[in-house]
Amino acid sequence: MAKAPDSKWKTLAAAVKLFRQQGYHGTALNDILAAAGSPRGSLYFHFPGGKEEIGESALTLAGEAVRQGIVRAAEVSDSTEMFLTRVARAMAADLEKSDYQEGCPIATTALETSAQSEVLGEATSAAFRKWEIEISSGLERFGMTRDEADQVATMVLSQLEGALLLARTYRSPEPLQRAEEALKLLARIGQEK
Amino acid sequence: MAKAPDSKWKTLAAAVKLFRQQGYHGTALNDILAAAGSPRGSLYFHFPGGKEEIGESALTLAGEAVRQGIVRAAEVSDSTEMFLTRVARAMAADLEKSDYQEGCPIATTALETSAQSEVLGEATSAAFRKWEIEISSGLERFGMTRDEADQVATMVLSQLEGALLLARTYRSPEPLQRAEEALKLLARIGQEK
Repeated sequence: MAKAPDSKWKTLAAAVKLFRQQGYHGTALNDILAAAGSPRGSLYFHFPGGKEEIGESALTLAGEAVRQGIVRAAEVSDSTEMFLTRVARAMAADLEKSDYQEGCPIATTALETSAQSEVLGEATSAAFRKWEIEISSGLERFGMTRDEADQVATMVLSQLEGALLLARTYRSPEPLQRAEEALKLLARIGQEK
Repeated sequence: MAKAPDSKWKTLAAAVKLFRQQGYHGTALNDILAAAGSPRGSLYFHFPGGKEEIGESALTLAGEAVRQGIVRAAEVSDSTEMFLTRVARAMAADLEKSDYQEGCPIATTALETSAQSEVLGEATSAAFRKWEIEISSGLERFGMTRDEADQVATMVLSQLEGALLLARTYRSPEPLQRAEEALKLLARIGQEK
């Protein structure tokens, strides 16, 4: 019984990494098996729904890791600005450390499949929504009203996602550095009160 | 001689649309041929480099259309805010009119191929850079210094790209509506002078 969860976990971890680096359609089941070192049989045992089921589970797993990172960033920060800067720098660190291969673990699959797969569309949408909710909670914690925080959270996530996309494409940290300045402006919303 | 450019054009237009809707890897050469109504022979005649060459040409074509849209938006606007709002609304209109199938024509392929293909990586990077340059020119026209405009242009493009991604994933215009508020803040940079 111990081996099954382990091979399931390895398959998902490999899928998260490959979808993040080259997208959902660019990743064949064989690529996932090879990267995970899992036998084909274990894949059908753990994921009877095939690639789409692996995709859904991988997106949920990757989304949850980022969500927890956002929660922790809020917990260890003293201000909105510190909170948002921390989130931006964590994303920049992942991207640079992977030599610009690992940006957002959700965005590529979201763009590829939103018009094609209801299951994957819902998984990507749920991941982004949860991040928005945690960003909003952090903003509220440091003084925004609920309504301000909800609106600003969308702007913050858009700024981060767009900057990650440009940084990855340019293979440069600059868009994420500039995003920090934009986030500082967004952090000031509601503070004139 | 008249038929060749026409079939080349149809192939590229079909490729732009398909890559935009479902990404580069999710689009097979046969999908492009079927959508364009072109014979396979014409494809190899016009694009001896195969799919990658079609991708490069399609990205260049799609990037140029957006670049021209940004230039026109600056020309018919009287202020930074009007300029940026116009660009955001044009993107929102494309997305809604296509029932959330057509977001950014560059982003999906950029994320899928940046780690894999130098040719496509350069084509996506060049498209985004050209948009940044035109956004920066528009910002300078309405009063920012060159240096401010260059920096803010990156923040503006990140905001727009991230909002397009979220709007497409959520199938909702809200992220782009909220992006307009963020763009208004960015438009005020440098105006306290």
